[in-house]
Amino acid sequence: MHNWTQFNHQGILASAGEDAYALIERLYPLCRSITGAGTRQTLDIIGQQIELDRSEVPTGTKVFDWIVPKEWTIRDAYIISPQGEKICNFKEHNLHITGYSTPVNETLNKEELLPHLHSLPKYPKWIPYTYNYHSEDWGFSISDEQLHSLPEGDYKVVIDSDLKHGHLSYGEHLIPGHSEQEFLIYSHICHPSLCNDNLSGIAVATELAKFLKNSAPLNYSYRFVFAPTTIGSITWLSKNQDKLANIKAGLVIAVAGDAGQLTYKKSRNDDSYINNLAISALETREMPFGIEEFTPFGYDERQFCSPGIDLPIGRLTRTPNGCYPEYHTSADDLNLVKPKYLADTMDACLDIIELFENNQTFRNTQPFGEPHLGRHGLYKKAGAYNIQNNTFAILWVLNQTDGTKSLLDIAQRSKLAYSEILNASKALYDVNLLELID
Amino acid sequence: MHNWTQFNHQGILASAGEDAYALIERLYPLCRSITGAGTRQTLDIIGQQIELDRSEVPTGTKVFDWIVPKEWTIRDAYIISPQGEKICNFKEHNLHITGYSTPVNETLNKEELLPHLHSLPKYPKWIPYTYNYHSEDWGFSISDEQLHSLPEGDYKVVIDSDLKHGHLSYGEHLIPGHSEQEFLIYSHICHPSLCNDNLSGIAVATELAKFLKNSAPLNYSYRFVFAPTTIGSITWLSKNQDKLANIKAGLVIAVAGDAGQLTYKKSRNDDSYINNLAISALETREMPFGIEEFTPFGYDERQFCSPGIDLPIGRLTRTPNGCYPEYHTSADDLNLVKPKYLADTMDACLDIIELFENNQTFRNTQPFGEPHLGRHGLYKKAGAYNIQNNTFAILWVLNQTDGTKSLLDIAQRSKLAYSEILNASKALYDVNLLELID
Amino acid sequence: MHNWTQFNHQGILASAGEDAYALIERLYPLCRSITGAGTRQTLDIIGQQIELDRSEVPTGTKVFDWIVPKEWTIRDAYIISPQGEKICNFKEHNLHITGYSTPVNETLNKEELLPHLHSLPKYPKWIPYTYNYHSEDWGFSISDEQLHSLPEGDYKVVIDSDLKHGHLSYGEHLIPGHSEQEFLIYSHICHPSLCNDNLSGIAVATELAKFLKNSAPLNYSYRFVFAPTTIGSITWLSKNQDKLANIKAGLVIAVAGDAGQLTYKKSRNDDSYINNLAISALETREMPFGIEEFTPFGYDERQFCSPGIDLPIGRLTRTPNGCYPEYHTSADDLNLVKPKYLADTMDACLDIIELFENNQTFRNTQPFGEPHLGRHGLYKKAGAYNIQNNTFAILWVLNQTDGTKSLLDIAQRSKLAYSEILNASKALYDVNLLELID
Repeated sequence: MHNWTQFNHQGILASAGEDAYALIERLYPLCRSITGAGTRQTLDIIGQQIELDRSEVPTGTKVFDWIVPKEWTIRDAYIISPQGEKICNFKEHNLHITGYSTPVNETLNKEELLPHLHSLPKYPKWIPYTYNYHSEDWGFSISDEQLHSLPEGDYKVVIDSDLKHGHLSYGEHLIPGHSEQEFLIYSHICHPSLCNDNLSGIAVATELAKFLKNSAPLNYSYRFVFAPTTIGSITWLSKNQDKLANIKAGLVIAVAGDAGQLTYKKSRNDDSYINNLAISALETREMPFGIEEFTPFGYDERQFCSPGIDLPIGRLTRTPNGCYPEYHTSADDLNLVKPKYLADTMDACLDIIELFENNQTFRNTQPFGEPHLGRHGLYKKAGAYNIQNNTFAILWVLNQTDGTKSLLDIAQRSKLAYSEILNASKALYDVNLLELID
Repeated sequence: MHNWTQFNHQGILASAGEDAYALIERLYPLCRSITGAGTRQTLDIIGQQIELDRSEVPTGTKVFDWIVPKEWTIRDAYIISPQGEKICNFKEHNLHITGYSTPVNETLNKEELLPHLHSLPKYPKWIPYTYNYHSEDWGFSISDEQLHSLPEGDYKVVIDSDLKHGHLSYGEHLIPGHSEQEFLIYSHICHPSLCNDNLSGIAVATELAKFLKNSAPLNYSYRFVFAPTTIGSITWLSKNQDKLANIKAGLVIAVAGDAGQLTYKKSRNDDSYINNLAISALETREMPFGIEEFTPFGYDERQFCSPGIDLPIGRLTRTPNGCYPEYHTSADDLNLVKPKYLADTMDACLDIIELFENNQTFRNTQPFGEPHLGRHGLYKKAGAYNIQNNTFAILWVLNQTDGTKSLLDIAQRSKLAYSEILNASKALYDVNLLELID
Repeated sequence: MHNWTQFNHQGILASAGEDAYALIERLYPLCRSITGAGTRQTLDIIGQQIELDRSEVPTGTKVFDWIVPKEWTIRDAYIISPQGEKICNFKEHNLHITGYSTPVNETLNKEELLPHLHSLPKYPKWIPYTYNYHSEDWGFSISDEQLHSLPEGDYKVVIDSDLKHGHLSYGEHLIPGHSEQEFLIYSHICHPSLCNDNLSGIAVATELAKFLKNSAPLNYSYRFVFAPTTIGSITWLSKNQDKLANIKAGLVIAVAGDAGQLTYKKSRNDDSYINNLAISALETREMPFGIEEFTPFGYDERQFCSPGIDLPIGRLTRTPNGCYPEYHTSADDLNLVKPKYLADTMDACLDIIELFENNQTFRNTQPFGEPHLGRHGLYKKAGAYNIQNNTFAILWVLNQTDGTKSLLDIAQRSKLAYSEILNASKALYDVNLLELID
């Protein structure tokens, strides 16, 4: 018997939004990077919500064109000003330290120090997020206001870090469904204390996983990957090449908690399945949303949509990365994200997934002429004036189920609501006028 | 030698319209249904105009998902009012009886009677057309005005009918042409005293058959089917599955005599041959006409366009079914249809058929460079200023006849009138610069 | 090592325009026709600029559907008026004689003479260009002004010509490149003293050949054909059928020296390679230009785009044939064409050819995820705020080089300038991240 998936998620959305926000609050203080303790602690905390299959890939491992980098440990970092004030204190805000900074313990004059300090003149009170994975160097982020108030004199710089052979960490959660074909959800976990980018994506994905786990039976399988951006998805892809053929659609979820409207970014192939699914589901919600054309910049969709991988994986955000002023600054904090926006992103994901679950292809078992609907109990009233409300949908489904069109295709051709096509299909399936094409 | 079909039909249209109207006048009084004597008498009268190959399919025959129903005989039906007045008298207007009503002979009070009476509040003077093929029951149609004047009291109800094992009747007329490939014309014959729907379609099809019979030689064969709607086309399709591969194009003709503009309803596949033919021919007439997208509701195009059949068969009407107020009421009478509109529908059909006859695919026999038109007698004058009028059409035909494009394709690419392309093709064929691809 | 072609042609354009104009001045006085001494002398003069491979095809040779005509020799032609004045003097202007006129030496009265005289009432001072290849006859062209001043009386008509077995002449110049695949440039040489049509095309093609000869190494080969229109291209095609498969793109160049904007006429197949190349290159020039849809009328594109040949060859003109008043008249003289317009046409041709040279298809050698740009020296700065200017182009090229898309395809998809895509491709090729698909 066919499973028609119907999520009853309206009732749980408010509490799921609160739970997601609570998870963000727990994760916010940790100093994450592409490797290291903060990332591992982040996976520990996610793992308290949903069972995680953890991987640790050693430094030096070749993953496609990349090599897993050394693991970065940061214990403390600060500068003592000429007046003896402790500034750029890592323990006050982890954005003060440039990611992957090498250890330092020396005294510099202001002129020597300045090239190592990064600020944002446009937003003088905010600390920018900086990192440097490409050379061995060190740096601090500082508000532009404070930068301009620094006196001449000697500065003592302390960075208690090391960059050693270690591991890159990621975690996965698989919810098996009737089919081995998968929907992949990917969230990056490498950013330090930044709430929207991307604790929001992590929290929405975690809540989605909890919800789907409780929604069995599912027609398809769902895989959640929590890993650092770029090197994380490259590593995961490199280690899981045998699984890629099963991925029918997927989403990178990020920047999921701000007040902006939802934005779907298309996958590389303009007519990919995920593009049709996501845009159709978002249209059905009858709320404004944006569509971005594919570009090879952004988050991990860059890797999923590289030419040798080329998966039907799009990206769902609210305001896209780089399009809100707080992006990659200390202002991306617990005030920028709200439970209701997290809940709204989760709602949209569930709409996309519910469409994915049910958008199967059926074949009309009586394709020669129309079936005798009356005999099948589907046409009860007499006379042309009494056509039943859903008879139009029934006739469209019967007419189009030639084995090449999914229910979404039929909704698009008939210009009827997908829900009407779905209901008609259920009625027809119940009387064996439709059969599923596997 | 290739046959270029050219109908000289302008001269005969007026008299064909009159003949069609006269046929409607003869058929109007008969009480047709999907089976029974009225339908058989209708085929008798058509058979006096064109030779009909008649079929009688027994009740109980399985036709695809359907079963041929019992045959319905109606001899008399009326109600005696409390004042002794005979109302809803079948012999005064056969729309008074609901099609397929079971026999009755009993007395009911007004309250018991009312559920069996059907009226049209929006048009209080008109009797609606009602039928009930889906359950064994009875009913009468009555004007809303009269319905509201009925007094309390006892009503004697008489329906002298029976529903017995019998046959479903249909008739066919085939005009063979050079090719076994066919153009199908289908008209439904199951409606009682309703002129536009569909005595008009029957009459136009009959006149078309008479005209084509006299227009030999024809390149293609033409099959006319006169049968009840839905169960009739399903039965015909079920009995003629071996003939379907020969059908290259076709039309359901109905609602062909009112004052509205012509409306072409597309077949299921948007780029089907009949869609291109019909729309191109209607455009050439330079009179306003409508185009309807395919939907799986309407007349017998539903069956011809079911997924297992999927033939290139569209529908030609004037005002579409359901879009004029008199539709399925006693007001669809001899005043609604006019000879000139019947003639106009027939003219449009002949334009479509003439295009079909000639729209063949030729191959340029000298495809390497242009042929030397002068040597073939096709380029007579000297100098660039003296290019012949039809030289543009000749050059387009030569350029495009690579064996993949029909004459209509060439007209569409060149933006020249189809008639110019046709004339150029005749000239080129005459000097063996074109050969027909069969 | 891959050759990236880059023409440094801006510096030489002015002198190339002057050289082209000087060539036109030398060729202008000659009386060309589709055969004969004038055509042969024209090839001699071109041959002094670029080495020509000459062909002489005998009268009577079958070339596809055509037969090479007799060779026409014209030595003198004039009329002595009743007043003894020598008019329509061939030695004053070779347009006075209708091409292919048979010899005459007789005296006619005005009424007998008039059918042999051709004038242009719309431009009463100009002599029209007339010819008659289709029947053996004679004629003169005359200004309309002079025609209307002719008195009654006897006219002595002298045409010292003959029409004898001879040859059709054409010349070719091939510049070999790395690949045997060719770009074809065709210019017709059969028009008498008409500068824009087509001494301008001949001169631009000659200058192009000189320039390309000095631009080795070239990725592709370039073939220049100088031959009469229609019968010339048909003859060349007929004699070179084994070479056609190598032609990847090409242009008919004509009417190349007037003040009008450039006009590209598309080849037969709307999505042909030359159409994409030429339109893209012309767009990049940021000067207004016209696009004409393909029609089977015009110059030798008619033959290259006949259905049996069907090559990706378009046409480049300035004001198209027939669209300027001086077309095919004595006013198409040395004043109508200017060095700067000849130079501009040549510049456009070089833009098209440079695009052709470089628009190859590469394959990303690290297609699984993005390559690690830093490791390859292509991503130098840290942090999202410091993305290099050309990183967008680099990422687009890497993303799209799946082996099915040329550099031009990538520019079109990314909406980046072709030059940026080209530069990014060079950078990627240099570090072996791209390989050429041959």
